[in-house]
Amino acid sequence: MTSARLAIGIDVGGTKVAGGLVDVSGAVLAVARRDTPDRSKSPDVVEDTIVDVVGELIAVVSAGGIGQVVAVGVGAAGFVAADRATVVYAPHLSWRNEPLRDALRDRVAVPLFVDNDANAALWAEHRFGAARGESHALMLTLGTGIGGALLIDGEIFRGRFGIAGEFGHMQVVPRGSRCECGNRGCWEQYASGNALVREARSMMYAGVPAVADLAERVGGDPASLTGPLITEAAQEGDATAVELITEIGQWLGVGMASLAAAFDPGVLVVGGGVSAAGEMLLEPARESFARQLPGRGYRPMPPIVAAELGNRAGLIGAADLARRSVDS
Amino acid sequence: MTSARLAIGIDVGGTKVAGGLVDVSGAVLAVARRDTPDRSKSPDVVEDTIVDVVGELIAVVSAGGIGQVVAVGVGAAGFVAADRATVVYAPHLSWRNEPLRDALRDRVAVPLFVDNDANAALWAEHRFGAARGESHALMLTLGTGIGGALLIDGEIFRGRFGIAGEFGHMQVVPRGSRCECGNRGCWEQYASGNALVREARSMMYAGVPAVADLAERVGGDPASLTGPLITEAAQEGDATAVELITEIGQWLGVGMASLAAAFDPGVLVVGGGVSAAGEMLLEPARESFARQLPGRGYRPMPPIVAAELGNRAGLIGAADLARRSVDS
Repeated sequence: MTSARLAIGIDVGGTKVAGGLVDVSGAVLAVARRDTPDRSKSPDVVEDTIVDVVGELIAVVSAGGIGQVVAVGVGAAGFVAADRATVVYAPHLSWRNEPLRDALRDRVAVPLFVDNDANAALWAEHRFGAARGESHALMLTLGTGIGGALLIDGEIFRGRFGIAGEFGHMQVVPRGSRCECGNRGCWEQYASGNALVREARSMMYAGVPAVADLAERVGGDPASLTGPLITEAAQEGDATAVELITEIGQWLGVGMASLAAAFDPGVLVVGGGVSAAGEMLLEPARESFARQLPGRGYRPMPPIVAAELGNRAGLIGAADLARRSVDS
Repeated sequence: MTSARLAIGIDVGGTKVAGGLVDVSGAVLAVARRDTPDRSKSPDVVEDTIVDVVGELIAVVSAGGIGQVVAVGVGAAGFVAADRATVVYAPHLSWRNEPLRDALRDRVAVPLFVDNDANAALWAEHRFGAARGESHALMLTLGTGIGGALLIDGEIFRGRFGIAGEFGHMQVVPRGSRCECGNRGCWEQYASGNALVREARSMMYAGVPAVADLAERVGGDPASLTGPLITEAAQEGDATAVELITEIGQWLGVGMASLAAAFDPGVLVVGGGVSAAGEMLLEPARESFARQLPGRGYRPMPPIVAAELGNRAGLIGAADLARRSVDS
């Protein structure tokens, strides 16, 4: 089937640039990964890396004679303008009004589109994963922060200027914890990987005995603590780690109840690295959601489900959205 | 012009049932009002009142030979199902899964549609008022509580089950003030007419000297205090009343920043009785909004404007939405 219409999806994260060759069924035929280069050295290094990854995947297609690459989609953790060409604000990638599509257009031979990474992930889950068959869905990607996206009538909702879905920066605690965005009390300070690590570290610094097992895992160095490490400890039965993840889940449920009041979704999908904690995270989330949902008892209770496509959702969705733009 | 296609809009509130005869330009040609009857006496009294108001307005049309009533729209303060026939949950009207359209169908000779009152108000502001020409708008109606509505791509957003836009019940203060919905810390406990009155009353009960002027206005009876009275006092320069309205405005701005992060609207419209306070309310709202909007400096700052159609927005919008449903 040499005429297969393939698309390349690129997921640009704070630590990794992951690319994938994606077919129309959402299958990933080949992958290519690079570390995200340090942009403080040169403004073009991230673009160079994207071009490099695209080149590698196109070479795979040429060598295998397995089809034709018709579009490239780039998913980035940041505010992407409605033109799907410009990253207006990406705190973790130091992009400010970055004309990413124009910068790449002459270096990539096929049409290219930029999208918010959570939008891309939700699109993938809608087409091939946990939100299949649902017209109205809300997605949260829990990593360092909280990425958010909305599906309305089967389409990604972009808002007036392209930057809808920044749920992580809704204020949930007046005068609460300081956030990287400059505000205080943002939801992502309470229901993300960052929150998990911050809480555990503060206990380690305070010498709380309950955190001894976690401390041991990082040789007593709070700075070495990571979200995945805490999840691992919880899965092995560490009570403090379980408690920390439960708390994140409860905050997640409260915020999701607020979002359900506003958006009335048919399903809420939880993805991102932190969602690896699985039911340990989702069970407390469902409990506090059910306690908090306004009008409960008089409305359908939308299910809270785990994402199905794992950390490839972003690149699968970016690829599929880009191919769809070319085809429409 | 005897062929004018007129519609009747009915706004069903906790205290008043207001009806209006509305032409295609949004002009209100005639009005009819009744007190909202006490539903504890009989389940049908509100329906009876609606039928009565519709009858009065149809008689005006017949007598004047001024056109033809093609549709009736009913706006109600509650969760209205996607079929626009059933009020699933209306705390202030004691409706629970009320099949309002079916109950009225045989008693009203023209097609009838039910809508959430804030949806109706936003539609009116979009067609004829403050959100004219804007495809993405967010509306808040500040009364006893907070009504909310969203316009997306020029259409009222209803969500998966018809009940989107319940912004007033988003949690903004963990373990905060108890809300009529049963939860704690709902936004409408901090940025509504109820909040205004509650704060002033608690000062009166505590004998705070700063509230002496307000106390005098109600003959020392905290129970007689109302939102409009506090607004009036503020407009006449009472410092405590001004401070209370400023505080409501600040809470309003913080919540609107969260909503703008989520929805990315082109404009935010503030209506409802409390908005009579005008700039006294909107200025502090704009200030805290500007301080709190995530990504500020890298995104367009959507304007916060006052509704233009006053307390007739609900009936104008309900009428226009109903006519539109008949015409489509």
